[in-house]
Amino acid sequence: MAQKVVYVVGLGLIGGSIALAIKHQHPDYKLIGYDYLERYRQLAVENNLVEDVCSDMLDFASEADIIILAVPIKVIKEYIVLLSRISLKEDVILTDVGSTKQEVINCAREYLKPKGINYIGGHPMAGSHKSGPLAADRYLFENAYYILTPEDLVSDKALVTFKDVLSGLKARFIEILAEEHDRVTSQVSHFPHILAASLTAQAGRYTEEHELTQHLAAGGFRDMTRIAESDPNMWTSILLSNKEAVLERVSDFKLRLSQVENILQSEDSEAIWDYFSQASKTRKNMTIHKRGGMDSSFDIFINVPDKEDVILEILELLRGISLVNIHINEENREDIYGILQLTLKTKKDQDYAYRVLAEKTNYVIKTN
Amino acid sequence: MAQKVVYVVGLGLIGGSIALAIKHQHPDYKLIGYDYLERYRQLAVENNLVEDVCSDMLDFASEADIIILAVPIKVIKEYIVLLSRISLKEDVILTDVGSTKQEVINCAREYLKPKGINYIGGHPMAGSHKSGPLAADRYLFENAYYILTPEDLVSDKALVTFKDVLSGLKARFIEILAEEHDRVTSQVSHFPHILAASLTAQAGRYTEEHELTQHLAAGGFRDMTRIAESDPNMWTSILLSNKEAVLERVSDFKLRLSQVENILQSEDSEAIWDYFSQASKTRKNMTIHKRGGMDSSFDIFINVPDKEDVILEILELLRGISLVNIHINEENREDIYGILQLTLKTKKDQDYAYRVLAEKTNYVIKTN
Repeated sequence: MAQKVVYVVGLGLIGGSIALAIKHQHPDYKLIGYDYLERYRQLAVENNLVEDVCSDMLDFASEADIIILAVPIKVIKEYIVLLSRISLKEDVILTDVGSTKQEVINCAREYLKPKGINYIGGHPMAGSHKSGPLAADRYLFENAYYILTPEDLVSDKALVTFKDVLSGLKARFIEILAEEHDRVTSQVSHFPHILAASLTAQAGRYTEEHELTQHLAAGGFRDMTRIAESDPNMWTSILLSNKEAVLERVSDFKLRLSQVENILQSEDSEAIWDYFSQASKTRKNMTIHKRGGMDSSFDIFINVPDKEDVILEILELLRGISLVNIHINEENREDIYGILQLTLKTKKDQDYAYRVLAEKTNYVIKTN
Repeated sequence: MAQKVVYVVGLGLIGGSIALAIKHQHPDYKLIGYDYLERYRQLAVENNLVEDVCSDMLDFASEADIIILAVPIKVIKEYIVLLSRISLKEDVILTDVGSTKQEVINCAREYLKPKGINYIGGHPMAGSHKSGPLAADRYLFENAYYILTPEDLVSDKALVTFKDVLSGLKARFIEILAEEHDRVTSQVSHFPHILAASLTAQAGRYTEEHELTQHLAAGGFRDMTRIAESDPNMWTSILLSNKEAVLERVSDFKLRLSQVENILQSEDSEAIWDYFSQASKTRKNMTIHKRGGMDSSFDIFINVPDKEDVILEILELLRGISLVNIHINEENREDIYGILQLTLKTKKDQDYAYRVLAEKTNYVIKTN
């Protein structure tokens, strides 16, 4: 397609990564950017995320063929209003990367649709524990789901153009309604975050009276509370912009807890067993099950001493085999021994690795 | 100490592992065992977990200096009653490995204390995803916490003997009251299990109406629901034997959820921010934080292609450096690239590794 001007508004991890991926795929495109932080603007130019930056968001807007709003939800809405008031290119496409979609879509429908401006709500489902322009990475979205909520706000032609412009991300585009996006993410992301924060808070309070609490908190607890460390700003904004769906999940969950209370109070062992058995079956059947290296696939567990180069020595023995993952499971035993977990692609690889390691090492080896 | 006869009742993963660790430390001890499954008895002898087995639990009891009840809570209580009715060695020490302690201690107090039989409630906090005698591993408990609840049911001398007999486990013994054990584990283990099962059930139900739910369930959700796959039999028995403490946690948690409902309903952004900010701080300050390799330490993140031997190549460059952990963070991007995370012991190692990799490879490298 013809050369295009892509305007990235917000030059943090997400905006910067999108810029890099677009430029790599379309070296002839002109990438320009804005950020309210001077430091981010500087870093973005120095690190070639964009060619040029401006310090007033509106400055570059009328040059752009695509405007990507990579800023918090609240700011996306403000910018949509501001952009609706100025003159933009006729075929311009606006998009955003916000974690919730209905509020943004409502805003675009109110301010942009009457003017015939194309808007595509977007949510690239990838991230990193890092942030800022220096963390930008053109591979960030590779194979990640990238939700699009075009609704009735974009022409078919503009949607095709949009996907071509962003093809360098190598993401998996999925088109759904904004409302459905917000419901699904309330269940798999927003509400679980409330659970993690609440469990952390509860255990923190309990530790004050039962000091051993934090010492005995092991793998399961650790996994369940990890996301409680995320940025409170982001989560406050996400919850407020998806209030109804999240509240419905909270209320539904309280009923589930009441059910557990009832069957436990009445010591109904059959009902308790059913509750856990159903959950266990559900978890095993969920698609997520097949994605994580931890859960599926062909594993080998090797009890290794904490010596230098012991992993290197094992990988040398397995030269030529593809590893899906490699991990040391420490649990409470960090000092002396650890279980090295290798996840392999096929049963054949697993059998081969087991045979080689059993023959050439003295470590205790197990498979799943 | 003098040669002893150790009788392991229940020859699964835990009983078998304890037997191996004791025998390794005390080669002169006589290890004997019982299991209600003939297959387990056979495997235990064939694999030298014990020298001899019997098919009636009471058969070997009067020979034993130590009797280790490595069976479910309900069976532990039944066996305590049975053992209280027969003649045992004068200084015999009975112990168990149950996941809850108050019920067992109550039973021992009622049936064994009047006869002056030493009882030490125990809970070794280690496990594996494997079970049965073939999974037995003498390193299973190394550096793991091993809770003891001696209360007033054991002499000082017997407690010293017990710790010496089990010294080969290299576990970290902690003595607390049974009630305190059960409270602490309700918070860090039993109640989180209810949360994980309930979240799984909720998402499973939601998937029926919102099909995308399971596809978009990513890292956070996966981590929070992993333990929902555990054995429903074990969890039914654990919850029933720790009913009061668990019910208290459920009730407390429902209040916390109601609090979230209120502040979200009233769109009190400051209160929502406080809620998440407090939780984030609490999580970061918890001792668990320092244990997991994921959370602390000196990390290097390398964006590696999914090629054979790429990890081997990297470890060869870093030969001589001690790895605390190694892990591929996949999230949604399993096919092509992955972030290889190396956790190192010191800042110096981290700097060195960064320098070497930046010099000798073309991968994108980041540090924390």
